[in-house]
Amino acid sequence: MLVNTRSIRVQWGDCDPAGIVFYPRYFEWFDASTILLFEKATGLTKIKMLEKYNGAGLALLEARAVFKIASQYGEDLSVETRVTEFRRSSFFVHHKVAKSDGVLALEGFETRLWTARDPDDKNQLRSSPMPPEILAAFQRT
Amino acid sequence: MLVNTRSIRVQWGDCDPAGIVFYPRYFEWFDASTILLFEKATGLTKIKMLEKYNGAGLALLEARAVFKIASQYGEDLSVETRVTEFRRSSFFVHHKVAKSDGVLALEGFETRLWTARDPDDKNQLRSSPMPPEILAAFQRT
Amino acid sequence: MLVNTRSIRVQWGDCDPAGIVFYPRYFEWFDASTILLFEKATGLTKIKMLEKYNGAGLALLEARAVFKIASQYGEDLSVETRVTEFRRSSFFVHHKVAKSDGVLALEGFETRLWTARDPDDKNQLRSSPMPPEILAAFQRT
Amino acid sequence: MLVNTRSIRVQWGDCDPAGIVFYPRYFEWFDASTILLFEKATGLTKIKMLEKYNGAGLALLEARAVFKIASQYGEDLSVETRVTEFRRSSFFVHHKVAKSDGVLALEGFETRLWTARDPDDKNQLRSSPMPPEILAAFQRT
Repeated sequence: MLVNTRSIRVQWGDCDPAGIVFYPRYFEWFDASTILLFEKATGLTKIKMLEKYNGAGLALLEARAVFKIASQYGEDLSVETRVTEFRRSSFFVHHKVAKSDGVLALEGFETRLWTARDPDDKNQLRSSPMPPEILAAFQRT
Repeated sequence: MLVNTRSIRVQWGDCDPAGIVFYPRYFEWFDASTILLFEKATGLTKIKMLEKYNGAGLALLEARAVFKIASQYGEDLSVETRVTEFRRSSFFVHHKVAKSDGVLALEGFETRLWTARDPDDKNQLRSSPMPPEILAAFQRT
Repeated sequence: MLVNTRSIRVQWGDCDPAGIVFYPRYFEWFDASTILLFEKATGLTKIKMLEKYNGAGLALLEARAVFKIASQYGEDLSVETRVTEFRRSSFFVHHKVAKSDGVLALEGFETRLWTARDPDDKNQLRSSPMPPEILAAFQRT
Repeated sequence: MLVNTRSIRVQWGDCDPAGIVFYPRYFEWFDASTILLFEKATGLTKIKMLEKYNGAGLALLEARAVFKIASQYGEDLSVETRVTEFRRSSFFVHHKVAKSDGVLALEGFETRLWTARDPDDKNQLRSSPMPPEILAAFQRT
């Protein structure tokens, strides 16, 4: 399955008075990492992808993070993102955040739903089967 | 001229490793304060106001803050917001942020532009004269 | 058990291009809500509480959110926060976020650990039993 | 004078319901860019630099941005940062944010102060002359 890896330098403003990353920042990085993975799979930015597939977004059903080791200002983290399972319209995303020495800092998990606009009512969103081409694109390595 | 005053508790996650408010947060508070002032003037949320006036937003031309005293986690700040001058389509917003004892912590200044959608091309925005009813609403005290 | 309820107006800058709350914002609100609950219990700000108990923070082991209905700019949400269980040094926090009509928008869950500084090495943190006075304070209604 | 250039991909969560970058984000990028410039000059992270020079930070006196063209999700921006003038202890930082075709999107300006801890009272900060080695490092090209 396709993997997206990106590197993130922890900035001063990402950290709290304890000097460690303020935890909602990790979810910002997860959200961007999921989008970047889909961009890698489809070769399209999220907006173009949604247009092409009449899509309405990657609706979030659940988000979770399990924290192992805090990270501090100035550290370089790597975020490795993959879809661990596709169901009919929902899918499971896994993020592994590692320190520069490879040690696991935290893991993130998102459950998302592929949604499309209702052809009869553009303001209505419906869960929709993941387009086969996108599924195929994720099989590349 | 109309004034909007709101109170903000500085949260842990608003602060940086030096224990003081991470400065972009002040601009988040300024942006929200400007919108709340317009909501107070018009009795409409920003989205309703834009719909009613075919408006496209309060485009930002310039933003500035002058810092006097840093603020820390747990402090209660007050933000006092007013328009100091309306021109044809641009206007100047002033934010005064005070500590709980009334001492000035910082000041913010925004120059914004009233914009509307071009009737011939909905994707084009143009600066547009501020609607007279909105100007009138700001004269209330 | 003690409950903290706060009301949050969704601001323009809390929302993404789909017009709904950018999800990491909910975790910012959860973090602040947990701290406000402890402040209500102890009558101390987080910093004072940590000083008094030689504490090193409410270390986060896990954070999770389950999303039901998206929220938009201009909505007023209420966040109701309680500890659902205290163990020796860990505890479970539950956040219920409701729309203004009382309908549940999302739920948050945090697993946290009471930590204290090691008396022999101030830079070392250790999980530590929750102070009995704090436990007692949470029994108030 | 030393220049630091970094590239920033505008993420979904950086943008507001109008689909453009929520303006406080630019100040987050300015703050990080100033720090990265000092890291480039000194070869030290901000925390190490402050330790070495008994420094207490790059206190912010004023921050300002002048906006030319809005930026949207998916764009790649470059941020070019330099100090335009050093005085005794204050200095002026300039940020130029350009679109991928080189067109100027906005400019940022920060006035900052080099501060050090008072040797007689560690909790007191004082403005302090910029260390000569740091000044020299900025002369490199």
